[in-house]
Parts: sequence; structure tokens; C-alpha cells
Amino acid sequence: MASSFSSNADFSRTAKLPRPPVMAPVPRMRVAIVGFGTVGRSVAHILTEQPSCFQITHICNRAVERKRVSWVPRDVQWTEDFAAIVTSDADVVVELLGGLAPAFEWVRAALLAGKSVVTANKQLIARHGPELADLARRRGCRLEFGASVAGGVPVLSGLQEGLAGDRLSRICGILNGTCNHILSRIETDGVSFEKALREAQKLGLAEADPTEDIEGLDARAKLTILARVALRTQIDPEEVHCAAISPVEAVDFAYAADLGCTIRQVSRAEVHGDRLLASVQPALVPLDSPMGRMHGSRNLVIATGQYGGETVFSGHGAGGDPTAVAVVSDLAAIGRSGPWQVSESAPIRRAVSAEFVTRHYLRFTVKDRPGIIASLASELAGHGINIDAVFQRRGFPKDCLPFVISLEECASSTLDRALREIESCDFFVKPTLSLPMLA
Amino acid sequence: MASSFSSNADFSRTAKLPRPPVMAPVPRMRVAIVGFGTVGRSVAHILTEQPSCFQITHICNRAVERKRVSWVPRDVQWTEDFAAIVTSDADVVVELLGGLAPAFEWVRAALLAGKSVVTANKQLIARHGPELADLARRRGCRLEFGASVAGGVPVLSGLQEGLAGDRLSRICGILNGTCNHILSRIETDGVSFEKALREAQKLGLAEADPTEDIEGLDARAKLTILARVALRTQIDPEEVHCAAISPVEAVDFAYAADLGCTIRQVSRAEVHGDRLLASVQPALVPLDSPMGRMHGSRNLVIATGQYGGETVFSGHGAGGDPTAVAVVSDLAAIGRSGPWQVSESAPIRRAVSAEFVTRHYLRFTVKDRPGIIASLASELAGHGINIDAVFQRRGFPKDCLPFVISLEECASSTLDRALREIESCDFFVKPTLSLPMLA
Repeated sequence: MASSFSSNADFSRTAKLPRPPVMAPVPRMRVAIVGFGTVGRSVAHILTEQPSCFQITHICNRAVERKRVSWVPRDVQWTEDFAAIVTSDADVVVELLGGLAPAFEWVRAALLAGKSVVTANKQLIARHGPELADLARRRGCRLEFGASVAGGVPVLSGLQEGLAGDRLSRICGILNGTCNHILSRIETDGVSFEKALREAQKLGLAEADPTEDIEGLDARAKLTILARVALRTQIDPEEVHCAAISPVEAVDFAYAADLGCTIRQVSRAEVHGDRLLASVQPALVPLDSPMGRMHGSRNLVIATGQYGGETVFSGHGAGGDPTAVAVVSDLAAIGRSGPWQVSESAPIRRAVSAEFVTRHYLRFTVKDRPGIIASLASELAGHGINIDAVFQRRGFPKDCLPFVISLEECASSTLDRALREIESCDFFVKPTLSLPMLA
Repeated sequence: MASSFSSNADFSRTAKLPRPPVMAPVPRMRVAIVGFGTVGRSVAHILTEQPSCFQITHICNRAVERKRVSWVPRDVQWTEDFAAIVTSDADVVVELLGGLAPAFEWVRAALLAGKSVVTANKQLIARHGPELADLARRRGCRLEFGASVAGGVPVLSGLQEGLAGDRLSRICGILNGTCNHILSRIETDGVSFEKALREAQKLGLAEADPTEDIEGLDARAKLTILARVALRTQIDPEEVHCAAISPVEAVDFAYAADLGCTIRQVSRAEVHGDRLLASVQPALVPLDSPMGRMHGSRNLVIATGQYGGETVFSGHGAGGDPTAVAVVSDLAAIGRSGPWQVSESAPIRRAVSAEFVTRHYLRFTVKDRPGIIASLASELAGHGINIDAVFQRRGFPKDCLPFVISLEECASSTLDRALREIESCDFFVKPTLSLPMLA
């Protein structure tokens, strides 16, 4: 027996030799691009560099005449009429419109017509992903959305395929480059939130209406998709608790630094039995942690698995070229495997809660007088919340004095109740800022 | 025209409706595990937790009786006879033997018999990967090796699939956890290389014969695989220049810190036209860079693409569970798509060179006397190499004095020539240590 383990027996003689399948020549993939903005142009650029693999059949955009460029092949049809694509011989529709209307109807129409769809549309996938994926399956085609989370960072494929063998229980990361840019700017240069936002708008890093980014709605759509793909949990984006980054001031970075921390917009989701804890909010993270070190507009995702521990992905989360890489990688994935995917275990519904148990940072801004800390301490103690430390930096005016209390671990709802009662105290000159402190 | 762009037309009526393909019920994948050490046991653990997807048919190991465990299903066949697997109904062989013999013959036999193979064997794939992949293609089965580089970090799938749409030109990273552990230990506690190595051996982090790790042979096998997958470049592992980490001393970390740097074993490969620059060697990296911040035995890979810029992957590169995650993810990938892969453009051969142009760190150890720096400076100048700065820390004995010269950018071969000439000077009491300084 032992000898056969290390023998050089000629296995080719004993082996059954099934006939290899015949490999058909691979045809070019016919791709229609819908939405011809920055990302659409980057996609077209990359595809035209690989004419043996891809043929662009259509470019569809509102007022398409002003979009025409000379560097795409002449046989591309420029159109405003999506119906022409639905009835065409395009194999795959690349949807880069963003938003829900008309993207939802159009993607549905493409799938119904048996065309695979690649989309970068996070709102569409967060809200209608399961329904559209189901339609794709029934129509024998593919729906791919690798570009919808973290742009060029291959996090969805990494989680879905590279970590398929693990059981993931936690996702956390920095999913919105605009917020990270603004917070980095306040941290580094001590500017106000408003100034940092205006600058980001000038640089084209923030929209004229920055609500989606600042209030966390952009990140929560991505977190919803990550929860589905990585944690096999189906939730609605509206169920995720969001808090805006706008109340964060330069002074908070100074106090955070006293605690060995900085502040980032953190998106996190964690499976706890039949519940999913999830939130998007500014949070204190250690200065020397992967999130703390993430400056500028890059994205970062940390996945925690039962077997593999923590795996970190980071890179350029937005921008035309990185997002286009994700789109073209999805096209390649469709080309590589068959038209349909083996059904995976369907994500399950879990109740969503933001009831994380963590340490907290409270920044109060008061008109100073004796007894304030004593009165806050006794209110907190009344809710069973323990104070860890009190920080008061010098150099602030007495009538608008920011100071910080760090708390030991408590449930966020307990703290919220305490803060609602404390709110009524007459010494406050600004709303209190409460941030979780992540280890 | 504009109206149809935003219309709510009922596309389902206009659409052609091809018949969806019939989805056959998915059978369980029959898996034979060959090599039942730490990784093999972890793989068996994960597979037995998913009995609806996987059935372990065989566990094959030398002296298999001492390997038997009670927690695998009773119908698993324990065997020392690989031929029994080749002629069995197993769909996939998981090869966890390591080394070239008998792994190469056995993997070949499995593929010839039409069985897909998943392997964690970096030496096998570095040396015989293309030949085995070709055989798999011809036999209509799959060869997957996600676990061969960076264990549980899904870097191969990320590069191959997630970044398929990009054109990657550069890979660099920390591919050997043992070396990174040893260097971190010297850095943090100032111990000698020998002591750090002995400790790593006691902890089970280094082999009794640590040559493969210390001299870079382990990392160069991984770099060879990364070059093939990410840079589409076929090289032989022996072509990659390697330098051992053993000459690095605690004093080098002190001098490196004066330069804002630390020292890591860095593996890197870069496409330059028809050449591939490649090396595995200790190098100075900035303290605040992703590589500089990587402590302990984790792995890190940074890929640089034409469109997506830098993408970073990191996580646990070794250990039973993380490696098993990669193996099971490969099994899932085989289950998910058809049995064969669409042929990708074959990797091309490129000449390999270690001729990186970088700044360098030179640590000389001398018996001090006047004129040493002048004489070294004039030797270097004679080869057109410019000195950037000279560092001399206090507190060392005059007869064994380490000091450092940092150089401006030059080609490594120019520097090697200069150092060979300088070598003969009579004031040296130890060989000179030359390390590249990476930005």
C-alpha cells in the first residue's frame, strides 16, 4: 500500500478517458452601452481596445448627438431609443444611467428579452437586486453588478467567489469616497465641514446636492448589497440606520486624537442570529487601524469570516476608469462562464437593528458653569452607563466650550434614551455629538 | 426620440422571448482529498458542514491509519492508494501533498482521468502550471489553484476575475508570512535574526529547514504564479532574483527608521515592454506604506493597473483554516460554472531581469579610520552613482562600526559592479548589505 502512495505507476493507462467536450470558437460579445457619461466613455475606451472580444453595438443616451465621439468604431449605433436595443442582437446591456427610473424598467426589459445586464447602479441593485436576479435566472441570462460597490475594487467577486468557502459574519468599511475625502480634509487642515464640502464640490468629488453622500444614503445602498452578497442577508436599504457626517467638527478630530483615534464614515453590518446589526455613521476608529489610515477618496472593505479571519480589500472606489474596470470585468465573467449561474442559497430576511454594543464618544458644547459634569454623570449613571474618561482641551471660550466624555460599552438605544433626557439641560449651546468608538 | 428615452413603454411585449434553459438539479460534488495534514483536515471540516453540496469520497495519505478521524462521514474511503481515486467516481481531486513528487504525476493522472483538480501547491503550479492547465483544458476539466498564493486572501480570483477588465503592469507585496514575522520581530524587539528564527521555529511558523522561506524560494514560486495570472507573463521560478533576509540586523531597522522606513521581504514584478523585472529580496519600504504597516504573518498584495490604479488585498496568507477557505472557494467555483474555462490569451514569455532602477540603502560595517567615507564616495562616483546621505549612529565600537549610505536612483547592476570593486577594501569587518529603497 505504502509503495503505491509514492509509486510512479503509469496512471494514464488505468485512467478512464472521457471524451473532452468540443470547444466552440468564442464569438465576440455584442455590448450595448446605456448612459454615456464618464464611466460609459471609459468602458467604451477599454472595449474598443479589445476588438477581438467585444463589439459595441449601441450607445444610448439622452440628447445623444452631443455625446458622439470619433474614436468608437463607425458601426456603433448612436441612439436615444432604448427599445431599439431591446429588439437588437446585442448580447449584453451595460446600464450606466444611475437612479431608479428609467433604469429599473429598462434593465427589466433587457432581461425579459434574454439579454444579460451589467450595471454599476447601486440604488437599483440595493432595492431591486433579488427580483432582477430572479428574472435573469428565469430568462437564462446574467445580471452582474460588480461596479455597484467600491468601483474598481473587486470586493463583490472577492466575497462571492474568493471567499465562497468561508462563512462570513461581519462586513465593515469605508464605502463613500466623498465623505472620506471631506473627513480627511477636516482632520488634516482643521477646516470646517462646510468649507471641506465646498472644496470637494469644486474638485468634482461631491455633487451639487451632496445629501446622498453626506447623510449616508449612498453608503447604505452599498452596504445593503454587501449584506446580501457576503452575509446572505436580504434587507431594504431604508432599514439601515444612517447618521450624517455634517455635525463632525475639527475639534472632534483633536479629541479623537487624544483617544488614539480619528473619525471616518463607517458602514458596518454584522449577523447576530436572526438579526442583522447595520449602520452607516461617523465613528471613532483607531489611528493605526486600516480604516484610520485610509485617507482621501479610496474605499476599504474588511470581511470577517469564521475560518479565514479578516480579509481586507482597498482601492479606488469611484471615478470613470476604476468603475469601468469593474464593468469590463463583469463582461469578461459573463464571457468566461455559461450564461446562467448555479443557484446559490437564497439570502434570508433578517430583522435589522442598529443596536450595536460599543464604547461611545460624546462631545458636549456648553456654556460653562460649575456642576455640569456632575449632572451629566448622574444622568448617565441613572441609565446604567459608565463613564470611561472626561477630556477638556484648553483655549475655548467659556460660553461655547466643547468637552468630551468617553463611555464604557453600552447599547446604543440605552444611550439614545439617556441623551434624549439630557437634551433638555439649559447649559447646552449646540446639539450633543454621539459617535461609536470602534476597536 | 427623447420621449422614448424616458418612456414607460411596455418592453415585455416588444421583446423577443427566448426559452430559458432548463436547470438540471445540481448533484453533489464528489471530492477526494489527497494529503490529510492541517489544511486537509480543515477542508474536510468545511465540506462535512455542507453535506448537500459536497460528498467526500476518499481521504488519501501515507500511513493513513494514524490519520483516521471520527467526525467525517462513515462512507469516506481512507486509502494510501492514489490509483483507487483515479479509477473512482470522484469528480474533483484536492491535492494537498506539496512538493513536486509525487504531486505532479498524481495531478497529471487525475486530469488525464477527466477529474478536476484543486491544489494549494505553489511549487507545482509555479513550475508545471501551464502544462497542467493545458492538459485540463484538453480533458474538459478544471485546474484551480487559488490557495497556492496568499492562502485565504482571494488575490488570484481578484486579479483574474475582479480586475479582468484592467491591464495590470505591476505586482508587489509580502508573500511569505514567515519572513514577515521574523523581520517584524527584529524590528519590534531588536533581537538577532538567529534568535527570531529560532522563536518562529518554536511557534511552528518556520520549518526546521527554513531555507525555502528565508532565501525567498517560497515567495518566488508565488510571484511566478502572480506574474502568470496578473501580468500574463510566463517565467520560470529560477529566473527570479532572490536575496535572503538573514543578513538583516536590528541596526538596519534603526537606520531604516532614520530614513522613515522599515524593512520587509518584498516580492515584485513589473512589465517593461518585452522584459519582466522581478525580484524577491529584503527592501526598505516607508513606515507609513501598506507594506511598512504589515506586521506579523499576514500577506499583502498590491496590483497596479492602467485604469484602476492600485488595488490592495490583505489577510491571512497561511494556516489550515484560511488556506482551506481558498480550496473550498475553488471547489465552489468549479461547481458554479461549467467544467471548462473559456481560453484566455495565453501568457507570453518575457526575459526576466532584476534590473530595477531605485534608490538604495548600503550598510557598511568597518574597522573605523579616517578616510573611509571619502574612499567609498569616490568609488561610487567612479560608477556614476550619487550619494544621497550618510548616517552614523553613536554607541558602536570603533572596530565594528556600522554606518549607512543612502544612494540616489541607479540600476542595480551598476551598483553590484561598484560593490564588487569596493569589497576588496581592507577596512570591512562584515559583508556590505545593499537593499533597494522602495517609494
